[in-house]
This record gives sequence, C-alpha cells and structure tokens, in this order.
Amino acid sequence: MSLTHAVLALLAERRGYGYELVHRFEERIGPAWRLNPSAVYPALDQLERSGHVASAPRHSGTHRSPRIVYTATPAGLVALDAWLGATAARPEPVRAELHLRLAFAQRRHRAALTARLASHAHQCEELLAHYPRAADRQDPAGTAALLDAAILARLRGELAWLTAARATLAHGLSA
Amino acid sequence: MSLTHAVLALLAERRGYGYELVHRFEERIGPAWRLNPSAVYPALDQLERSGHVASAPRHSGTHRSPRIVYTATPAGLVALDAWLGATAARPEPVRAELHLRLAFAQRRHRAALTARLASHAHQCEELLAHYPRAADRQDPAGTAALLDAAILARLRGELAWLTAARATLAHGLSA
Repeated sequence: MSLTHAVLALLAERRGYGYELVHRFEERIGPAWRLNPSAVYPALDQLERSGHVASAPRHSGTHRSPRIVYTATPAGLVALDAWLGATAARPEPVRAELHLRLAFAQRRHRAALTARLASHAHQCEELLAHYPRAADRQDPAGTAALLDAAILARLRGELAWLTAARATLAHGLSA
Repeated sequence: MSLTHAVLALLAERRGYGYELVHRFEERIGPAWRLNPSAVYPALDQLERSGHVASAPRHSGTHRSPRIVYTATPAGLVALDAWLGATAARPEPVRAELHLRLAFAQRRHRAALTARLASHAHQCEELLAHYPRAADRQDPAGTAALLDAAILARLRGELAWLTAARATLAHGLSA
C-alpha cells in the first residue's frame, strides 16, 4: 500500500510516466529502499482503478508508440492529503529474511549462516557509504536529512548487531 | 517468499495445520514480525502446488468437519536444506512507511507527522518491553538469543533516531 501512496504523491507534484516515476522515486527515497521497478506498474493500475489518477497516451517525437502519461485527479489529491494527514499508526513490523534463517538453521547450516552474516554486513557497509546524501537530491518536504538519518540509524544498529552475532557464531553456540 | 520457507521449516519439524502453524510461527519468531495470520494459507497452497508439502484431511473428536493437516515431503526437505544452506544474499531493503511520509509531507502535515513519530516511538517501546524473551520459548536452533538481539538492535536504533527526529520537527525545519 505504501508504494502506491508514494506514486500518487509523485504524480501530485507533476504528471509522469512509468519508468520516469521509478527514477523519481529512487532519487527521492534513496537506494536503501531497493525498489523493484516493476512494482510501479501495478501501483499505477490500482490508482487508476480507484480513480486517483487518470492516464492518457502521448506521442513523442522519438517514440513510435505513445507513452502513457499519468496525472493525479482531484479525488487522488484528497486521498493523498488524507494519507499524509493521518495520525493513527499501524505497528511497523521488524522483519528480515536473516531472522528466519537464524530461527530455523541447523548445525550443518552454521557455515552458510556465518557467510550470510558477513555478506549482510558488507551490504550494510556499502549502503552506509551512500549516506548522508540529502544534499544531492530534490527535497521539497525539507525532510531529506531526517530520512537519511533514519536509514543511517537502522543500518548502524544492524551493523552493531552483526558484529556481535558473527563473534557469537565464530565461538560456537551452546545448543 | 521468506514466510513460505518458514512455514516449510515448521512443517519439517513436525506436521501441522493452518492456525496451529500461525501459533508456532509467532512463538518462534516473536511479536516484532507482526505476522498477518491469513498469509499462512496462501503460503501452504504455494508449498503444496510446488510439491514441497502434502495435505490430508483429518477428523478429530471435537470438530465436525475434518482439519487439513500438512506434512513436508522429501522434495520439501531438500528445498528447505538448500534455502538454509544458501550463502548468496540478496540485499535486504530498509523500508518504512514513515520514510515515505517524511519524504512527501507538506508543511500542513507537520502536526500529523509529529504525532506519527510519537506513536511510532511508543510502539517501539512497547515491543522493547517484550525483549529479550529468548528464555521463554522453544529454541531448537540455539539462536533465539541472537534473533532477539537483532530485533533489539533495530528497535534501539529506531528509537534513537525518533528522539532526534522529534526534536528537529519540534524546532521547525529549514524548508
């Protein structure tokens, strides 16, 4: 649901088409989200079915087939405002595939698990190398630095844990 | 995909049926995952279609209609072992609905955003009150304490950031 709202928010700023919206999302939210570009298209379909965006074909000089350009409707702007103004929060889950591996690994998987922890730590370090990056990008809400700080806090907490977990696994577990 | 593997892992330990698997998942992984119980049923369907589990109706004394009991197949056990032994890691995303709200909020949404941050912090504190809880539950992998520590690290990082973010919003942003 949340990606759908983000696509609507981008279209409320100005109209756009599929691939361009992928680019604008990535520029705004940063690399830690790991957007699956193909997820933008069902989000656009859903927004159109609910009347929150309208689409129209647009011919351009360089493309033989028309592009589908999307625009937020007045109903879409109302829905977006309601979402951004909502104060009731659903609990946010704390989920990671690594948690499931930890919970179900057997002794013979320990070497693989150790390698996974190392790989996960490496990926956190790679992402950390991209932050803070608020200065590089569009920031109409004036909150890009806060967004980066949120991601930094998560990545640093994860790395601190990974260091402790790798030491524990290296010395063997009690079970 | 990862919930499907977890359901397969639970069935590899012993056979089970829908609602019981929800309970066993929650006991093993803890409350921070926020499992949607209804997600277990499509996972079971998918596992059955791929031949990783088999189902059979079972009558019990107290229920008029039979329960569907699921068992891991030999092919399922092989697939599970491959998953637990895999060393290549996909990057894990850092996603939160709150990140999107931060990125798209406008000035008139600032009060609502502040309330969301407070609510989010409250939920992190509630979850923290449930950890560490490794001693309370089944732990065949011997990794429950590591799992709890991972969740603690994430929640503490999040709370540290929320404290800073609320202070920043309370004093107003530059934009």
